[in-house]
Amino acid sequence: MTSSGDGAPLFAVVMAGGAGTRFWPLSRRSRPKQLLPLAGGRSLLAATVERLSPLVTPARTLVVTSEAVRGAVREELPGIPAENVLAEPEGRDTAACIGWVAWRLARTSPSAVMVVLPADHLIPDGAALRSALSAAAATAYARGGLVTLGLRPTRAETGFGYVEVGDAVGTAGAHTVHAVRRFVEKPDLETARRFLESGSFRWNSGMFAWTVAAIEAAIREHLPELASGLDRMAADAESEGEAAALRRHYPSLQRVSVDFGVMEKAAPVWAVGVEFAWSDVGSWGGLAETLPGSPAGVAIGDVAAIDAERSVLVSDGPLVAAVGVRDLVVVATRDAVLVVPRDQVQRVKEVVEALRAAGREELL
Amino acid sequence: MTSSGDGAPLFAVVMAGGAGTRFWPLSRRSRPKQLLPLAGGRSLLAATVERLSPLVTPARTLVVTSEAVRGAVREELPGIPAENVLAEPEGRDTAACIGWVAWRLARTSPSAVMVVLPADHLIPDGAALRSALSAAAATAYARGGLVTLGLRPTRAETGFGYVEVGDAVGTAGAHTVHAVRRFVEKPDLETARRFLESGSFRWNSGMFAWTVAAIEAAIREHLPELASGLDRMAADAESEGEAAALRRHYPSLQRVSVDFGVMEKAAPVWAVGVEFAWSDVGSWGGLAETLPGSPAGVAIGDVAAIDAERSVLVSDGPLVAAVGVRDLVVVATRDAVLVVPRDQVQRVKEVVEALRAAGREELL
Repeated sequence: MTSSGDGAPLFAVVMAGGAGTRFWPLSRRSRPKQLLPLAGGRSLLAATVERLSPLVTPARTLVVTSEAVRGAVREELPGIPAENVLAEPEGRDTAACIGWVAWRLARTSPSAVMVVLPADHLIPDGAALRSALSAAAATAYARGGLVTLGLRPTRAETGFGYVEVGDAVGTAGAHTVHAVRRFVEKPDLETARRFLESGSFRWNSGMFAWTVAAIEAAIREHLPELASGLDRMAADAESEGEAAALRRHYPSLQRVSVDFGVMEKAAPVWAVGVEFAWSDVGSWGGLAETLPGSPAGVAIGDVAAIDAERSVLVSDGPLVAAVGVRDLVVVATRDAVLVVPRDQVQRVKEVVEALRAAGREELL
Repeated sequence: MTSSGDGAPLFAVVMAGGAGTRFWPLSRRSRPKQLLPLAGGRSLLAATVERLSPLVTPARTLVVTSEAVRGAVREELPGIPAENVLAEPEGRDTAACIGWVAWRLARTSPSAVMVVLPADHLIPDGAALRSALSAAAATAYARGGLVTLGLRPTRAETGFGYVEVGDAVGTAGAHTVHAVRRFVEKPDLETARRFLESGSFRWNSGMFAWTVAAIEAAIREHLPELASGLDRMAADAESEGEAAALRRHYPSLQRVSVDFGVMEKAAPVWAVGVEFAWSDVGSWGGLAETLPGSPAGVAIGDVAAIDAERSVLVSDGPLVAAVGVRDLVVVATRDAVLVVPRDQVQRVKEVVEALRAAGREELL
């Protein structure tokens, strides 16, 4: 199946532009999280693209990344045509990224349905994801409007955004379809517990589906400044080629997320209910909850763990020998080693800031 | 002063043959503890030899090490004549090492006094050490018998051996001299507390002084098998050179420590009382008690510590970034990283054993 089920061509847009520091020292400017081998030996990006097959063909798989890592992304995805790896001159958040692709498809495949996925999530069950994307694409085609995959919460998670949904308005494949009432930012613990109990809240997965026409219309309505920039960029791309147009216009496109700039304001928005195991792999600590592990925790690479418990031990080079450690994260590369208690992993930011302040550019 | 005070030439014997694994991964077979830069940027060995000056001349400083590291030891000690760096074909414990040097000196300087020191101890106050060695040498010359430096205990330490001493029988320089009643193996905590309170126990420092004649006589009396081996080796060294004689005889010399084989059985044994700060640098954890540190603990090499407490952070290559750690030891080299709670540092042995069992020879 390579269409939305009604003959409209189905394109996947994999957003691989992220650059964060939460996986330092394994992640660097030249190798962001989505390129790390966190998906059972493969990169998160490669695993994401592989999961799309056979729902979406390589020719219709578009990967948006940054200039800095375009070469690495192409190497990571030998099955994807080189011209399908698109590089932003600089990151302008997800609305600009999605708008760029939508405006391009409006010229080449105006009847297309797009599914949009982050490159750095972990979803072990590829068939379940394809079933959900297929249902979302069919919903986008049949009902119009914008569609989000709404994950059924399995815990009172305070680290994700939520959508509140109404009763099911129908089904798509094996999935229920709901109208989205509202988007909710990350809640506090009590609110998250209430959401979990109520049954009418879903995790906002950051995975979407829509027709090219629907997302273009929504951007024109809710982000007219972004739409104007995309129009100018598209016009110049026609006359002088896309590379020059990108360099001139992309860095000044409106910077806003598609969630805040479009989804929270648009109507109708549909949520397709899904229940597969999913992680946004937010931190070294989170990895332990995601990957199959032993009581020792998670070990990746050349690790010798003796009497370790609930720890995340990662090597990208030197042997990591950990003895008697508890709830500890150790990440070792050729030139840097991070050691931090698992409940403080977010403090890796402080290390990165200290290194930047000290001019240790070679380690960033 | 380069004699024992009465014209007898004073030789120092620095025992640098150790090979232990307690400082893995920094220590390797090719770079044992005494060659590690644990003495404020210098190696323990270099600091030990420097502390002897000007009491003992370089020409009378003998360093006994192993074949495997003789080259590294020579490089570490450019001021010591190359022929003064003696290499054991294999380690046969301290009695054989001391006997070998005594039998050599019996031929070349039969009236010599020897002071014997391990290469891997940390003694910040060099003048205090020289004062003590000078007193021990004078005592050995004046009273005969064997002399040990007896450190006044400052805590109920269970990791050291002790000597029980009688009332002072006199003084040497600024030091009291006592007859040793008995040697005591590492005590339990209650016994160590009793020793500390009694005032008549000293730590056995492993530093000795004696005339060549006295140690030769003691070895002949208490270790006749070793003495026979040393006699045969000396005879063959005369006829065919020392290298060939060493290879033939040294590996079968009786293997026993000078403490157990000689000191515990000999009489008289004198203890010269000393009180300087001293550490045998027994482990990564012990280093924190020895080196000047901050509340964060000890940092050696390229270390970025953020909110660390009571930790030992050591780099011999990669940056070590530690955040929020407590009572932790982290040692990073180019090819191996050790992480272990400070109260479990002795378990580094388990790592080394596991690596050996796994055939990871390159890491040993």
